[in-house]
This record gives sequence, C-alpha cells and structure tokens, in this order.
Amino acid sequence: MTMSLWSEVRPEAARRLVVAAVESFAKVGFHATTTRDIATAAGMSPAALYVHFPSKSALLFEISRTGHERTLAMVLDVANGDGDPVTKMRALVENFVTWHAREHVTARVVQYELTALPEREYLIIAGLRRRIEQAVRALVTAGSAAGVFEVPDERTAARAVLSLGVDVARWYSERTRKTPRALGREYATLVLGMLGCTDSP
Amino acid sequence: MTMSLWSEVRPEAARRLVVAAVESFAKVGFHATTTRDIATAAGMSPAALYVHFPSKSALLFEISRTGHERTLAMVLDVANGDGDPVTKMRALVENFVTWHAREHVTARVVQYELTALPEREYLIIAGLRRRIEQAVRALVTAGSAAGVFEVPDERTAARAVLSLGVDVARWYSERTRKTPRALGREYATLVLGMLGCTDSP
Repeated sequence: MTMSLWSEVRPEAARRLVVAAVESFAKVGFHATTTRDIATAAGMSPAALYVHFPSKSALLFEISRTGHERTLAMVLDVANGDGDPVTKMRALVENFVTWHAREHVTARVVQYELTALPEREYLIIAGLRRRIEQAVRALVTAGSAAGVFEVPDERTAARAVLSLGVDVARWYSERTRKTPRALGREYATLVLGMLGCTDSP
Repeated sequence: MTMSLWSEVRPEAARRLVVAAVESFAKVGFHATTTRDIATAAGMSPAALYVHFPSKSALLFEISRTGHERTLAMVLDVANGDGDPVTKMRALVENFVTWHAREHVTARVVQYELTALPEREYLIIAGLRRRIEQAVRALVTAGSAAGVFEVPDERTAARAVLSLGVDVARWYSERTRKTPRALGREYATLVLGMLGCTDSP
C-alpha cells in the first residue's frame, strides 16, 4: 500500500492513527471498526487516540476532507490552467484516475463512506464534491461550446467522467498489471471518445 | 426501494430475511450487520433465521449469487442474440445500467461486499464475474474486428464499460431525476463513443 497521502501528517502518532483508520475503514467499513481496533493497529491505547481525535467520526472526516480537498485542488489547477478543453480534460482524467488507482485504499474510504459522516461534516464534504463536479461540468460545457465535444447531456457526461475514475478505486489492486499512470493515460483517451471528441491531440 | 429482484423468493419468511439483509448490508456493510439485526428487521427471532439460512455469510452468498447470475444471464442473452456488435453493445449497456440504477440497493451489496464472502463462495462468484467480463470483452473484440470499434486496449475498454455501469449503484438514488431506463439509454450512447464507434445506429 502506498498511502503517500498521509506521509506528512504530524505528530507521528496522529499519522499512525490515520493510516490505521484508513486501512480498517477500507477493509471492513466504518461501522464495523471500533476506536479500539484503530488504536491497537497504531500501537496505542484507546485513551491515547482521543488525544488526537475526539471520535471515530473525526478520523473519518479528516480522511474524507483531505482526500476531497486534494482532488478539488488538482481539478481546479487543471481547469484554471492554460490549454484548450481537450488538453485540460485529458490532464484532468489522467490525474484523477492515477490518484484513484495509486491511492485506491484511501480512495475507497473517501468515496464509499460518505453516508457514515455526521450531518454537519457531510455537508462540508458535499460542498467540496459539488465544486469538483461543477469544474468538470464547466469543462464539458466549454468543450461543447468550442465544438470539440459532442454529448447528449452535459450533466450526465460530466458525472460519467468522474464516475469512471471513482470506480477505479473499487477494482484496482496491487495485482493490476497496468501502472496507475498508464491506466490514467488510457482512460483519458477513452473519456475523450466518450465526450465525442474527434479532435484528440 | 424497488427490490423487485426478491419478490419471488419463497417461503415468505426467507424473502423477508433476504430483503432485510440487503437493506442492512447496503446501509452499514456486511461486517457491521448482525444476524440479530436481520432477524429483527424481518420480524423474527435469530433462531428462526437459522431455519432458512445457516449463517450471515449464507445470506450474503444468496444475494451475491442471485445478482451475478441475473446479470450474467442478461449479458449472455444479448451477446448470443441477433444483431451487429454496435446494436448488441447498446442493448447490453442499456440493460446493465438500468439494472444498477433500478436495483441500486441490491447492486451495492452485490458489487461492494465481495471481499466479505468466505473463500469457497468467493471463488464461485469470481467465476460468474469472469464470464460476464469475457462476454463483454468478446463483444469489444468482435466490434474491433468488424472495424466499428477502435480502442487502445480491448481488455481495459471492456473493463471500463462494466465499471461505468457498476458505479451507477454508488451514486444513483430515488432523488435522481433521470429514470433508470433513460440513464441506461444515455450511457449506451456514451459507451459507444468511448469505444470509438463512429457508426452509431
């Protein structure tokens, strides 16, 4: 497992707790994980866990927030950068898919445990997700306006672009023969086809 | 919730147990569900559950097997039927996506709880999944051979076709404005574009 997303969490004890939580949430789910499970896997007592995180939900929120903020930053970086819609969409899909393959254990928690978040935290995450979706939709709209994309419904097409990337987290594993980056590049080509792009650079 | 897949399970007590299990597995996951939870939701004692299913795993296997067998039957029905690769692919995606939207609660259990199956049962389900993937790959290959599809890698393309449909179960809900069938039709058009099809009927 790579888990490179968490390498800079400090202090070290908090880092170990986050990694242990990600692994257990991804394996058996949030609801079947106890704070004791997490603390034990991180080599601590349950009491020591509460020094860093007030609850199991706080750990899930930290994982979910970090994953979503990182994704949003990547998407906005591409969307606000230079280039035509085709070049931007290619870069966006390549990065999005590479992340979901490379960090597939974290991505499973980020994508599949949303309903386990408490309501207030859920609303914050939902806001981040809306901004990610809006950026992708704006890119589909820009490509349609420029005449390089042709889709039946921009909203559905934008959703399908993200959906295809998200599902990589479900099936990708260390046994997959394709590297995350190679898969990202292939998916970018598939997505441009899906968007009716006949002008692939 | 539709749950129409389970309407014919008999006796009635077994049907109620399967529906209760699907709902709880989909909501909190297999590992966080107890046989007592399932029995209570079905209006029975835990002892009454064991009359119909020897274990919680047996319930999961029944749900998973039924879902996969139904999907395989649909895929083979289309694949072995009449029509050119484009017509067949359109029908396959439309049916696959419609099913994952309409039965999204069941489909979540079928697609996301595989690793909770005991080893022997897992191997049976893995065999069904392989046959589904092979049928889709054969259809991609047939389209490529006929010159109507153009993809960088047939294996990756076939996987992406199924992946796009599977992920519908994650995000589709009763609040989605598009009907399952309308979504299926749009996704069929998106997939044909993804497969480089320029000859869409």
